[in-house]
Amino acid sequence: MSDLYSRLSKDDAAVLLVDHQTGLISGLVRDYGVDEFKNNVLALGDTAKFFDLPVILTTSFENGPNGPLMQELVDLFPDAPKIARPGQINAWDNEDFVKAIEATGKKQLIIAGVVTDVCVAFPALSAIKAGYEVFVVTDASGTFNKQVADASLTRMAHGGAQLMNWFSVACELQRDWRNDVEGFGALISSHLPGYQNLMGSYLGAQRDLSTQNA
Amino acid sequence: MSDLYSRLSKDDAAVLLVDHQTGLISGLVRDYGVDEFKNNVLALGDTAKFFDLPVILTTSFENGPNGPLMQELVDLFPDAPKIARPGQINAWDNEDFVKAIEATGKKQLIIAGVVTDVCVAFPALSAIKAGYEVFVVTDASGTFNKQVADASLTRMAHGGAQLMNWFSVACELQRDWRNDVEGFGALISSHLPGYQNLMGSYLGAQRDLSTQNA
Amino acid sequence: MSDLYSRLSKDDAAVLLVDHQTGLISGLVRDYGVDEFKNNVLALGDTAKFFDLPVILTTSFENGPNGPLMQELVDLFPDAPKIARPGQINAWDNEDFVKAIEATGKKQLIIAGVVTDVCVAFPALSAIKAGYEVFVVTDASGTFNKQVADASLTRMAHGGAQLMNWFSVACELQRDWRNDVEGFGALISSHLPGYQNLMGSYLGAQRDLSTQNA
Amino acid sequence: MSDLYSRLSKDDAAVLLVDHQTGLISGLVRDYGVDEFKNNVLALGDTAKFFDLPVILTTSFENGPNGPLMQELVDLFPDAPKIARPGQINAWDNEDFVKAIEATGKKQLIIAGVVTDVCVAFPALSAIKAGYEVFVVTDASGTFNKQVADASLTRMAHGGAQLMNWFSVACELQRDWRNDVEGFGALISSHLPGYQNLMGSYLGAQRDLSTQNA
Amino acid sequence: MSDLYSRLSKDDAAVLLVDHQTGLISGLVRDYGVDEFKNNVLALGDTAKFFDLPVILTTSFENGPNGPLMQELVDLFPDAPKIARPGQINAWDNEDFVKAIEATGKKQLIIAGVVTDVCVAFPALSAIKAGYEVFVVTDASGTFNKQVADASLTRMAHGGAQLMNWFSVACELQRDWRNDVEGFGALISSHLPGYQNLMGSYLGAQRDLSTQNA
Amino acid sequence: MSDLYSRLSKDDAAVLLVDHQTGLISGLVRDYGVDEFKNNVLALGDTAKFFDLPVILTTSFENGPNGPLMQELVDLFPDAPKIARPGQINAWDNEDFVKAIEATGKKQLIIAGVVTDVCVAFPALSAIKAGYEVFVVTDASGTFNKQVADASLTRMAHGGAQLMNWFSVACELQRDWRNDVEGFGALISSHLPGYQNLMGSYLGAQRDLSTQNA
Amino acid sequence: MSDLYSRLSKDDAAVLLVDHQTGLISGLVRDYGVDEFKNNVLALGDTAKFFDLPVILTTSFENGPNGPLMQELVDLFPDAPKIARPGQINAWDNEDFVKAIEATGKKQLIIAGVVTDVCVAFPALSAIKAGYEVFVVTDASGTFNKQVADASLTRMAHGGAQLMNWFSVACELQRDWRNDVEGFGALISSHLPGYQNLMGSYLGAQRDLSTQNA
Amino acid sequence: MSDLYSRLSKDDAAVLLVDHQTGLISGLVRDYGVDEFKNNVLALGDTAKFFDLPVILTTSFENGPNGPLMQELVDLFPDAPKIARPGQINAWDNEDFVKAIEATGKKQLIIAGVVTDVCVAFPALSAIKAGYEVFVVTDASGTFNKQVADASLTRMAHGGAQLMNWFSVACELQRDWRNDVEGFGALISSHLPGYQNLMGSYLGAQRDLSTQNA
Repeated sequence: MSDLYSRLSKDDAAVLLVDHQTGLISGLVRDYGVDEFKNNVLALGDTAKFFDLPVILTTSFENGPNGPLMQELVDLFPDAPKIARPGQINAWDNEDFVKAIEATGKKQLIIAGVVTDVCVAFPALSAIKAGYEVFVVTDASGTFNKQVADASLTRMAHGGAQLMNWFSVACELQRDWRNDVEGFGALISSHLPGYQNLMGSYLGAQRDLSTQNA
Repeated sequence: MSDLYSRLSKDDAAVLLVDHQTGLISGLVRDYGVDEFKNNVLALGDTAKFFDLPVILTTSFENGPNGPLMQELVDLFPDAPKIARPGQINAWDNEDFVKAIEATGKKQLIIAGVVTDVCVAFPALSAIKAGYEVFVVTDASGTFNKQVADASLTRMAHGGAQLMNWFSVACELQRDWRNDVEGFGALISSHLPGYQNLMGSYLGAQRDLSTQNA
Repeated sequence: MSDLYSRLSKDDAAVLLVDHQTGLISGLVRDYGVDEFKNNVLALGDTAKFFDLPVILTTSFENGPNGPLMQELVDLFPDAPKIARPGQINAWDNEDFVKAIEATGKKQLIIAGVVTDVCVAFPALSAIKAGYEVFVVTDASGTFNKQVADASLTRMAHGGAQLMNWFSVACELQRDWRNDVEGFGALISSHLPGYQNLMGSYLGAQRDLSTQNA
Repeated sequence: MSDLYSRLSKDDAAVLLVDHQTGLISGLVRDYGVDEFKNNVLALGDTAKFFDLPVILTTSFENGPNGPLMQELVDLFPDAPKIARPGQINAWDNEDFVKAIEATGKKQLIIAGVVTDVCVAFPALSAIKAGYEVFVVTDASGTFNKQVADASLTRMAHGGAQLMNWFSVACELQRDWRNDVEGFGALISSHLPGYQNLMGSYLGAQRDLSTQNA
Repeated sequence: MSDLYSRLSKDDAAVLLVDHQTGLISGLVRDYGVDEFKNNVLALGDTAKFFDLPVILTTSFENGPNGPLMQELVDLFPDAPKIARPGQINAWDNEDFVKAIEATGKKQLIIAGVVTDVCVAFPALSAIKAGYEVFVVTDASGTFNKQVADASLTRMAHGGAQLMNWFSVACELQRDWRNDVEGFGALISSHLPGYQNLMGSYLGAQRDLSTQNA
Repeated sequence: MSDLYSRLSKDDAAVLLVDHQTGLISGLVRDYGVDEFKNNVLALGDTAKFFDLPVILTTSFENGPNGPLMQELVDLFPDAPKIARPGQINAWDNEDFVKAIEATGKKQLIIAGVVTDVCVAFPALSAIKAGYEVFVVTDASGTFNKQVADASLTRMAHGGAQLMNWFSVACELQRDWRNDVEGFGALISSHLPGYQNLMGSYLGAQRDLSTQNA
Repeated sequence: MSDLYSRLSKDDAAVLLVDHQTGLISGLVRDYGVDEFKNNVLALGDTAKFFDLPVILTTSFENGPNGPLMQELVDLFPDAPKIARPGQINAWDNEDFVKAIEATGKKQLIIAGVVTDVCVAFPALSAIKAGYEVFVVTDASGTFNKQVADASLTRMAHGGAQLMNWFSVACELQRDWRNDVEGFGALISSHLPGYQNLMGSYLGAQRDLSTQNA
Repeated sequence: MSDLYSRLSKDDAAVLLVDHQTGLISGLVRDYGVDEFKNNVLALGDTAKFFDLPVILTTSFENGPNGPLMQELVDLFPDAPKIARPGQINAWDNEDFVKAIEATGKKQLIIAGVVTDVCVAFPALSAIKAGYEVFVVTDASGTFNKQVADASLTRMAHGGAQLMNWFSVACELQRDWRNDVEGFGALISSHLPGYQNLMGSYLGAQRDLSTQNA
């Protein structure tokens, strides 16, 4: 039942990145600042990489105004299935996409994409219907404006999707810092300048004391 | 059950445009910019036209301060039933309106109107009670302010309505670009200046290369 | 079941106005502009009056910093039960208040108050538990800020309350303009300057034509 | 020189209300809430009345979509010159308007209107050029959005206009409460619900003590 | 069932304060102003103290950039269990934390923390799954931005948590002012400057009258 | 002196449209909604056309990611000088651009462009230094965000530029409706949906009366 | 000349606190959060105290709805002149107020008050005219809304006032931390929770290292 | 005179980076998103590097809670003078800082820092008084909130500073793309994800055509 806590597990989860294409981001996404959105998408990508989750990339008409996939994602996942959909808007309507998911053997799907109300909402709702647990990464998904985003997230929440952000995805997968303190610290601080500042100040404070003690 | 993905189909859907009258828009709608709102309403109209969905127009006291229906909608749907309600606030209380819906034989209703909390919410909730699937087009529906809109959308979501926007409606109906690439591209780019810019840049880039190659 | 459309009826509804006291409004309400909030509260009051609904007023420590009830409400409902609670925060804990509600014989309760998260949420949720249908008038209820309001409205929506605004309450009670066109027009235009402007323009337009024709 | 404090005086000031017409307010003003804007305009009107300042009303194409002057202003100033401009956009280009100002013999002009960037800015800058001191009542002037308002107010401030709001106009004219404590208190509390609440609480507090003492 | 009003009781409730550490607040919390957030957290702390609720403190890597617990909380609860988690991100994964909760014998858990989407959401959802009633104190919980907060609160609300704020928690626990008028008044006015102003004005008003009567 | 009202005249003014290219708009402009910005730019273009002002178009690296000029502007001004700058960022550094301006013989320059802080601010300040009167059309100029726009507009205002919007430019050029009532009405209503609604309502109102009289 | 840097000096400055009365703050101030505003006012008070600047308090009708001065200010400055104005709105019109300023012998006036557009703007502009240098503490001054505040601050800036905030006032007076590192640190951290967090983290970091070294 | 266009030249300009320390950014800066602010500061740093401008770094109490300078700036400018001020708040009061500036021989100073109202405003105004031309980089300067930033920027603009952003600084220094097209393109695209998207799309479009042609 969707109302009880379905917890992400790195052993059960796959990541679907839908239509993070340069044109779509540039021309359509307006509910996040451009710096912030790029950072969020790459943070989700690095999180998937860090936990070695299966990742499936898909694009819509990448030979056209929608533009190619963000180059950083291409570079990050050279071996991931990359489904160039010939026309299907809902990625779930593309057999290769669904097969690629089935091939992972995972039942928890972490989804982000552009635009939220279409490229995320449609496959998210389809996946729930197909029996998957769905976790939408809201801050790595963008659309026309805040009002469209809100309506779309409400639709998905009422449809049984769990709304998360990249940081809570990373934390729920990590579970315990001791699984890899340094690696996880590097992952999150590289995408959280606020956390990076904390680390800088901490090191500075210790350096001060060392100097005083010397 | 309302919690599973109810997917719009162009074969099952009708569009209800409720009280998009010049006075009501001018005097009452403040949760969208005027340029943006007009564009959204006409985009929904053009979407209905493109998919040849049955459309039902209705107005409330159009001979009075509420004003006539937006002229563009009148022109767009010359043959659509246009129910001038003599007094019923909830369009569902008007027998002709319900009959016109029944005459379409469709069970999926796409609704937008002015104002959201009354002219959309009342018939939307009535339609759900009557057994229809209801899809509210949030960005083609306007009201007094964002707080009123939010309360109203929450009421409808908890009542079983699915919240969408015109673009996701168009995409869910289209399903596959290949059904009509050019037509669908023209439909969305004519209402998405951001997409139009992408197309302009794409053509420009190809022109550049052609010139270089020449 | 709360998920189907529970529709307000002027024969089944009573109005509860909880703690609209001068001090509380002045000192605590910050999620609405002061002009706007006063207008909304009085609009709800006038709506109750127009439909001759039973109204129950209640206050918390009105002899103290919370201040007396808004004078306009006192004047509007000279004969309404006015329960000055000696200490209970949740009005539902006050027997006189509950008895006054029971005495109305109504099962639909329209509630507004200050502050939303306490004086509205507590009796609203208690009333639902006691078997009433509850309609919260969000824009005649105020609190510390938008974030507190949102959390509180979410709590109530998930608890089964229906979120409305004064205008949708008035419209759902009226049902058909023909029940009293002039009276209802006067009611809403007196609290909607936007509608009043429409009426002014309409009359002006007709005056112009009359002059031209003369 | 414009950079030193030019202080409003009730003996030197006239009020110009430019194009507060129902259509223009309804169709174009979006930088203030409708409740708030109506209240601000009427507050300025009542202020002018209270101090018995000469008022000049003017309209642009009132027989047409722009609509008639707000009825409340017509009723408030039955004897004021009302210049229906046959076509001039800048009221200062209308000889009758300028003559009406000259006839007042005042050198301080308090201006408000719709829309700020045209109907206020043009005559305000013209009046400064003609040697008048100009005080723009920003919150009784409305326009398309906040960005347009800001650009326009900056233009006027750099052009030598003093930016005020209706409340500061009233206070600068009043100078000393003792000139008429009751009258001035009534004036401002009738347009400041926040102040009205303070008065309600104050009276309540004193009533409490009286009761205790009795 | 979560949809009926679950009401906080001071006899059944414990408070969990999760990771209110100086570094995390400083580096990560951006959805509340810094003055406001500090005030909210301390208000919740004082509320717990006032009602003598069992409080459990926990921290994540307090010897590091996350920083120590806010000193005020340390001082306020010198005898509370303080679980320094060696690595678990979800506090519920820490046996000592869960045992400390079980040791209280309470079934209602009031939770706040930093950041909302992780340190609050994870244990909140885990606690619901474990059979507890969970009350999230939204305004004493902070995170990266409003969009992340909203997604996270939606996730928890759909998962069965009740969204509250510190003031409604205090009021729901207090139930009746007469249980301790002075104490409760001191509690809330010390964290609500708006209420403090009301008290100042009330005392002033009575002082005035006393002077007049003398 | 820049502090006195410098009034636009259709006989003295030329329009400079700087770098309204599809890529720059799509990738960089975030201080206006996309619908709104496109409408503003085209409204300024139509205004220039209506008053038959000399227009000079210029682009920066149009054969590249910046993209071609908006097609609508190309179509609107087929005969205007179109200066494709080979590298100069400040259009004023391009001799052909300055010569084209000199060739118009005008001393009032109306400037808009993308991005405001560079493509507008640089030539605007250069033109003032060169002795021109400069009118910046703020709402037909876009940039990264509101904060950048504000800083840039402040720089220009302090540098002597007059800040306007397309509507006030149109009105200041028109001066008197009687110069062409129909033409000017068509111009502004085609870009102001709010005004268009007023006209719809006005016609509707007159139609009603005609019908009643018939 | 006002355009060159006039720098605050603790030897030349006096502080004027105008009408920080409980009623006015409660009923009228809406451009700052209540927590934030109280903190700012007390921070300015503590700053004045720390530098031992002469402070002059004044109130308007404190025996009435405006309410008494904030008790904290009364307690902080028991020996400061406290001018209860019998009616003058502009404090500068009160001879005792001006004499109290003259008695300080200072030529730099730091002003804050409620409401900004009246109680601050009027004496600020009067003081400039009288030859004083005026520094307005914007964040310890409150009014109806952001738009009124902006217009008022623009008026004062163009009139020659320098706009500051309490923190920059404190820093400009302090000039060099070495004048009193501990005292100044205590002053600012007591009103900047963000700075207090930094200090907590710094001490924590050093404590960690000490422990490691032990 | 400050009112004419003072144009940045790479031969005349030096860059002052004041107090970009980890603690101050983390604890105090709230007027920019953390991702955005870090990007802006590094963009300004890279701009200075690209044009080989002399850079002067300075810090306030870096051995303490204010924290060390951002490590990226340390790494970027290993040879720049780094003035660790022993106590002076206004960097201009530090002789070494002023001497370092004089040693550059430049008369145009580009300043950014934390916090805007103190660490930027004080040296900016001092530098103007000392005869320098000052260009404030608003988006690489941060402070407590937008209201404090606005007041501070207004103070500086009226004091003669020119308000810019990092991108306009880069463009005004570059003057002509042809001076180094590739280098400048790399500079700006590395800090403008929006521009980077344009480049991705452009390359994609050309690749498409090449493929088609092949």
